[in-house]
Amino acid sequence: MSLLVVGSVAFDDVKSPSGSKKNILGGAATYCALAASYFTEVRVVAVVGDDFGAEQEQVFKKHKIDTRGIERAAGKTFRWGGTYSDNLNEAKTDFTDLNVFEKFQPRIPREYDDTEFLFLANIQPTLQADVRRKLNRARLIGCDTMNYWINRTPRELAETLKVVDVLLINDTETKMLGHDTNLPRAAQRVLAMGPKALVIKHGEYGATIFFREGAFGMGRHPFRAPTLPIEEVKDPTGAGDSFAGGFMGYIASQQEVNREVLKRALFYGGVMGSFAVEDFGTARLQSLTREEIEARFQVFRELTHLE
Amino acid sequence: MSLLVVGSVAFDDVKSPSGSKKNILGGAATYCALAASYFTEVRVVAVVGDDFGAEQEQVFKKHKIDTRGIERAAGKTFRWGGTYSDNLNEAKTDFTDLNVFEKFQPRIPREYDDTEFLFLANIQPTLQADVRRKLNRARLIGCDTMNYWINRTPRELAETLKVVDVLLINDTETKMLGHDTNLPRAAQRVLAMGPKALVIKHGEYGATIFFREGAFGMGRHPFRAPTLPIEEVKDPTGAGDSFAGGFMGYIASQQEVNREVLKRALFYGGVMGSFAVEDFGTARLQSLTREEIEARFQVFRELTHLE
Repeated sequence: MSLLVVGSVAFDDVKSPSGSKKNILGGAATYCALAASYFTEVRVVAVVGDDFGAEQEQVFKKHKIDTRGIERAAGKTFRWGGTYSDNLNEAKTDFTDLNVFEKFQPRIPREYDDTEFLFLANIQPTLQADVRRKLNRARLIGCDTMNYWINRTPRELAETLKVVDVLLINDTETKMLGHDTNLPRAAQRVLAMGPKALVIKHGEYGATIFFREGAFGMGRHPFRAPTLPIEEVKDPTGAGDSFAGGFMGYIASQQEVNREVLKRALFYGGVMGSFAVEDFGTARLQSLTREEIEARFQVFRELTHLE
Repeated sequence: MSLLVVGSVAFDDVKSPSGSKKNILGGAATYCALAASYFTEVRVVAVVGDDFGAEQEQVFKKHKIDTRGIERAAGKTFRWGGTYSDNLNEAKTDFTDLNVFEKFQPRIPREYDDTEFLFLANIQPTLQADVRRKLNRARLIGCDTMNYWINRTPRELAETLKVVDVLLINDTETKMLGHDTNLPRAAQRVLAMGPKALVIKHGEYGATIFFREGAFGMGRHPFRAPTLPIEEVKDPTGAGDSFAGGFMGYIASQQEVNREVLKRALFYGGVMGSFAVEDFGTARLQSLTREEIEARFQVFRELTHLE
């Protein structure tokens, strides 16, 4: 089944203790689409500028990603620059030039009308809800957001949360959105806002999925997928979007959406996130094999598996 | 088999968002011994003052903990006061009165000479090494330490690390001791200092055990035990010591020390730590049943278990 990813395509300048790179292909939709492409067919809706050329297009094409939804606008592509210090947990933003992304109005090509799986990467919540409403046949909708929207557009975000199935955010965002410093309590409050499931990404500790009572035909018991910390994190940019790509891509590749599938999807999310940070930008996500992915899945599974 | 715990017995004043309590029984050895008492016979070496009476003694007795190693000294017992703010991750210390603990010189009763399992709670590293040398029959020695000793007595600590088997510390302590901000790299450096295994406690995310190559007859693959975050954390004091109690107590209850036992021990550590924080002081650790412990073990196991 096809997964449609709606979000940003960008050029990034990244500095980390492992080095620095300029003008590398990035953006939430790029990371997510590449990660998902190892599991299922992927379509992208995004906007790019004149500086997005054949070289960038080729990255998507090589992974059989449908780029008919990538709109070309006059001007420059979204550009972001960030620096990671020693602990690598948070980037200091050096600059954000929204450029053509500032007026991004997602347009869904008619060929994408049959989309069954949709991931709404981190964009303005009203745009997310608009896209969702246009895709009536969507069976499962994943959604990301960030502190900026939680603080600035809480009402718009609340409307969006009513029409998505799985929200994927981190610990801090969950506590902020749920107005509670206790994570499981905050998780319950977020679920009460609409989504059937909440995936909380814990960075190097993995991720936990919390279910609304009765959602996906199962109880409220959460599930955790660990990740194994990486010995050299070169560039943490896009780890969360790559997680979303592994998670949504695996789900889209399965016949049914049930608890077992969501559990495995959580593991695949961690696997793709852990690969993403091993090199700058999307370099590692471009060079993977399905065998490498399965091998790491087994390592993560063994990491917590009791006989 | 018996587990000997060497460390502090204290009276604590604790404030948290859930309330406040004064003069409650605490101390690393107390938490560790109580947690371990659900798995095996426990002995304690510690020092208390005149204010430690029949009521406190009874807490140990009720759990069949051998208190012949608890020395009574003239003066007051170690007293600590701390306040937890909203996030509950770190206490602000209000006061520390070492009292009789300041001159603590652990004395091992002759009846403890046959000790096979030993846990050295967080005390001055040279005292830890002295105790260890007196117990020639010890098969497995666990050890805790803290930032204070890592910074102030690095040479003494390095000597202690050469004579213990498993070091149990948290993420920050691992990075500090290993002089590396990357956790798995820091873990390898700590293992190179002596211990066969390193247990890194991640708080609400669980714990990971890293093995030195060839230790316990197995490879270097680490293992992670998750914990499920608790909806109401009343008092985080002693969570790490309760973890150590569950971990060491379970190991001491088994015939062999092998990888499977250490994996389960890591789960039991998380289980006991998660119970400890549910009430102030040792209240929850005093009221548990083995059935409750097994039930939570199953919940934690299911939390990450893929079919």
